[in-house]
Amino acid sequence: MTEDQFFHALFQRLPTPPAEVLVPPGDDCAAVDQGGGRLLLLAVDQVVAERHYQLQGPAAAGAAAAGRKLLARNLSDIAAMGGIPQYCLVALAAPAEQSPEWLARFLDGVATLGAEFNVHMIGGDLSGTRQDIVASLTIVGNVQATNICRRNGAAAGDALYVTGVLGSAVATGHHLTFTPRCAAGRWLADNHLVNAMIDISDGTLLDCRRLCEASGVAAVIDTERLPLRAPQTTIGAALTEGEDYELLFAVPPHQQEKLVRDWPFANIPLTRIGHITAGRTPEIRDQHGNLLSDNARLGYDHLEQEQ
Amino acid sequence: MTEDQFFHALFQRLPTPPAEVLVPPGDDCAAVDQGGGRLLLLAVDQVVAERHYQLQGPAAAGAAAAGRKLLARNLSDIAAMGGIPQYCLVALAAPAEQSPEWLARFLDGVATLGAEFNVHMIGGDLSGTRQDIVASLTIVGNVQATNICRRNGAAAGDALYVTGVLGSAVATGHHLTFTPRCAAGRWLADNHLVNAMIDISDGTLLDCRRLCEASGVAAVIDTERLPLRAPQTTIGAALTEGEDYELLFAVPPHQQEKLVRDWPFANIPLTRIGHITAGRTPEIRDQHGNLLSDNARLGYDHLEQEQ
Repeated sequence: MTEDQFFHALFQRLPTPPAEVLVPPGDDCAAVDQGGGRLLLLAVDQVVAERHYQLQGPAAAGAAAAGRKLLARNLSDIAAMGGIPQYCLVALAAPAEQSPEWLARFLDGVATLGAEFNVHMIGGDLSGTRQDIVASLTIVGNVQATNICRRNGAAAGDALYVTGVLGSAVATGHHLTFTPRCAAGRWLADNHLVNAMIDISDGTLLDCRRLCEASGVAAVIDTERLPLRAPQTTIGAALTEGEDYELLFAVPPHQQEKLVRDWPFANIPLTRIGHITAGRTPEIRDQHGNLLSDNARLGYDHLEQEQ
Repeated sequence: MTEDQFFHALFQRLPTPPAEVLVPPGDDCAAVDQGGGRLLLLAVDQVVAERHYQLQGPAAAGAAAAGRKLLARNLSDIAAMGGIPQYCLVALAAPAEQSPEWLARFLDGVATLGAEFNVHMIGGDLSGTRQDIVASLTIVGNVQATNICRRNGAAAGDALYVTGVLGSAVATGHHLTFTPRCAAGRWLADNHLVNAMIDISDGTLLDCRRLCEASGVAAVIDTERLPLRAPQTTIGAALTEGEDYELLFAVPPHQQEKLVRDWPFANIPLTRIGHITAGRTPEIRDQHGNLLSDNARLGYDHLEQEQ
């Protein structure tokens, strides 16, 4: 069972959310209508030591870098909805050998990135474990109701674009230092340039498949157009490794010229990597028509890693 | 360093929250003014296996009971603000040997109690650990701005009341089966009967001290009036064990008659256990004038347990 299937089954069992929950669980954030034209955005994500960052060895991350990553992952979820992040709440559980100073540096890492994005920490909890260091963060943001970007609006003929470059995110340290694409996500949303958007956290192929599944479409990815992060980055890495935290989005034909012409982020590459096709199953093919999504390993799945 | 001191120091280092954060971190929930007369309430809490519930042995809790406790603890925080809970987001991290079925039962435990309180799960995340099972939950609720109950309004002369009975919460299983006092908290708030309120999670003495510290007052607890949970429950247990999840609140003199006369919860004991006194330090004394808060062990502190 994948994490997606696990949560899909869970949310199927739950009572239907009330009508004000305009975006139910299953997108990057849930969205709640509180009146006044803006939606409340909420999402939760976590980082676990030795899984999302290393405590020891040559690739060891400091406490502040680990805390930074926790918030950055969540900011990426807000970016994918076209929203503005505002507040966060952090729960941290660690064994006794992790000093209060280490815990403080971890939370300072959250707060330092928070200050850059005007996100305020408004709640926290500490607990003890026997061995693991587990931290979770709930992000709270908002978005204009008319501008929200979801996963489910892609249509055949849309172009598929990505921000930034892909692959080798762990090898290059990008997974700890990336800048969440909040400004780009908000610009795309405010200018109504996308039919669907998602952030690439678990691999281009897996996240593209999620977007296609939510939209009831298929996709073609031109693998030769994938923007690669480093000289050694392979196409396979760009497709499946994940931890890129870039935006993947579907742009309707009439908006593509405007997107490319008006893109205001000189330091953020913008690449058309494929297009959306009609399809009852969320198949992803390459430019030669070969099925990419049949690969056993689409990307990083948290539950499958555990089995 | 205590958990309170740790977070106090952390929040001192952080930028001042924006003006719409009417209740900053340090109360049971943060409260954010979103206009329209109602405040958004937010809090995070966690449960860790073998710390907040047992996985094995005669006191072992099933997965659903553990999940239930996670939500119940958070509902108690909403109750203490006089609020109405609405949504929750859950992060769960567990080792591979914890089956998807166990994880599903845990989350079903959250959802079953959620259905009783009309709380909808709108977000979730799963991750893996090496050994520990850590779950955190962010609760989202709301309260009428004019009715919110905080920790910081107690004044000399107020009576101190508790709901329910105290002590032996773990020994009797109460810590897994308690009903969060949302209805009572809301009734007290809507009727403007309290100057300050807190929930008793870490022990009567420690939580009373928090209320006194926030209010800049001291207190007297008449230990002979403490409502004890079971025949074997000692006064010490009622004062320090915690896990009671009852409400402790300060009632101004002119409201005490109304409180006792109109209390509509026939099945929830209501007990006056003391009163608030003037004091620059949050000392708590018993009816004979003996200092209770000088005890080295006030209650359960999460950070001190880890040292």
